[in-house]
Amino acid sequence: MGYEFDAQIAVAEEHPGRYSADLAGGWVVGGGVNGGYQLAVLGNAIATALPEKPDPIAISAYFLSPGAPGPAHVDVDVRRDGRNFATVAADLVQGDQARITTLAPYGDLRRLGGVGRTTASVIDLPPLEGGLSGSFGPPELRPPLLDRFDMRFHPDQVGWAMGNPSGEGVLSAWFRLADGREPDPLELLLVVDALPPTTFALGAMGWAPTLELTAHVRARPAPGWLKVRHLTRNLAGGMFEEDCEVWDSAGRLVAQSRQLALFPK
Amino acid sequence: MGYEFDAQIAVAEEHPGRYSADLAGGWVVGGGVNGGYQLAVLGNAIATALPEKPDPIAISAYFLSPGAPGPAHVDVDVRRDGRNFATVAADLVQGDQARITTLAPYGDLRRLGGVGRTTASVIDLPPLEGGLSGSFGPPELRPPLLDRFDMRFHPDQVGWAMGNPSGEGVLSAWFRLADGREPDPLELLLVVDALPPTTFALGAMGWAPTLELTAHVRARPAPGWLKVRHLTRNLAGGMFEEDCEVWDSAGRLVAQSRQLALFPK
Repeated sequence: MGYEFDAQIAVAEEHPGRYSADLAGGWVVGGGVNGGYQLAVLGNAIATALPEKPDPIAISAYFLSPGAPGPAHVDVDVRRDGRNFATVAADLVQGDQARITTLAPYGDLRRLGGVGRTTASVIDLPPLEGGLSGSFGPPELRPPLLDRFDMRFHPDQVGWAMGNPSGEGVLSAWFRLADGREPDPLELLLVVDALPPTTFALGAMGWAPTLELTAHVRARPAPGWLKVRHLTRNLAGGMFEEDCEVWDSAGRLVAQSRQLALFPK
Repeated sequence: MGYEFDAQIAVAEEHPGRYSADLAGGWVVGGGVNGGYQLAVLGNAIATALPEKPDPIAISAYFLSPGAPGPAHVDVDVRRDGRNFATVAADLVQGDQARITTLAPYGDLRRLGGVGRTTASVIDLPPLEGGLSGSFGPPELRPPLLDRFDMRFHPDQVGWAMGNPSGEGVLSAWFRLADGREPDPLELLLVVDALPPTTFALGAMGWAPTLELTAHVRARPAPGWLKVRHLTRNLAGGMFEEDCEVWDSAGRLVAQSRQLALFPK
């Protein structure tokens, strides 16, 4: 049986180095197509170009223009192909407009091995049934994006949804895709940009466009629910950073990311 | 009066979009030219190409091959030039080998403004006179790189230099250039990759090549000594992340970076 997410990130090779895709309408939020979803589409094209090294190890994405639902293509340029890693430059393009430009080393996480040791602490969340569903509010006011996920937020951190922001730059949630697909490295590229911006928790409810997002995939996630946390500490020059961690059901830190975004006006 | 650092990161325009440089021999460490220094050279070429937007706001660098002292050039391709930010793709090249490939938005930090508010805590260091100089050991065994800096390490974190590593993935130091040059945004690109790897503190004394480094410059640094801290929490897939913070003499968090590097064999 096929999952919605796999169909929506599908790519077809036009010729070596160019892959066509179709950005699905269900991922629109804040006037554009979600950046994490675009990154998963682009990441899937790179994986297709590199069958021996199918996993993103790191990816840095710079957002050049907002994506729209509809046809797109991904240009993949392998800059270096070494023993364990291939480093590529890849762009997601619609018409003659680049939406995202990226640099990424890919490899095979099965071969590279799992988590060795960590001093990081697992994300503090109440049990699943104690989390607040991300689908609050009337359906006609919800961005279509929210129907793609099942999220259960830490109840202390979503006061902003009721007009009472916590004032602390942290948002955490249980996460899985609504279609029940189990997580894999590609899906993690979406997960690191799926939650609302931490600026909501700071009381700034406007759009917070991402300038740059770099994600590191540290291990293949185990099946089951993920725990995701976004943390912002520093506002400067009209921008804020957002650090994200993703932990899997086996209690391992499987992805780390940081983005730099514009503080809402 | 000219500073050594300015002479060593100097570039000359060959034609629009291409800048020649000369990597100085004094920056060699571990068999190659220091990555942070290469990044400052490349960053200077971008600044030269964008006189209205001279400051790196973010830069993601992927290291493709080790740099050597001698001639190099930087190719700068402006991918998007907006009101506040220009996003460029730039490569540092020697012969026909790309050393570093980068993506970076540049802007004018004077115009964007300073630190708004932060919940981050300033790096904990003893007073300058209590720090341990980075120039320990006989001069003939020191990498030339160390003569470029004046560093004063936290004495509790450099047991590795005496064969007694702390076992904790943290290294912090006071930092300035040996030539007395005051810090600026370009210099911060060097500072985030100047300290020894945190793996030394974990007892792994080998070379730890960087796969990816992304730096965010959050504000123009004030004159004076900087405080720098590197922190590693997670070893996975034979790799470790290294988070760096740089604070200026005015007590502001002026740069944040993260790199993904290979754990020494």
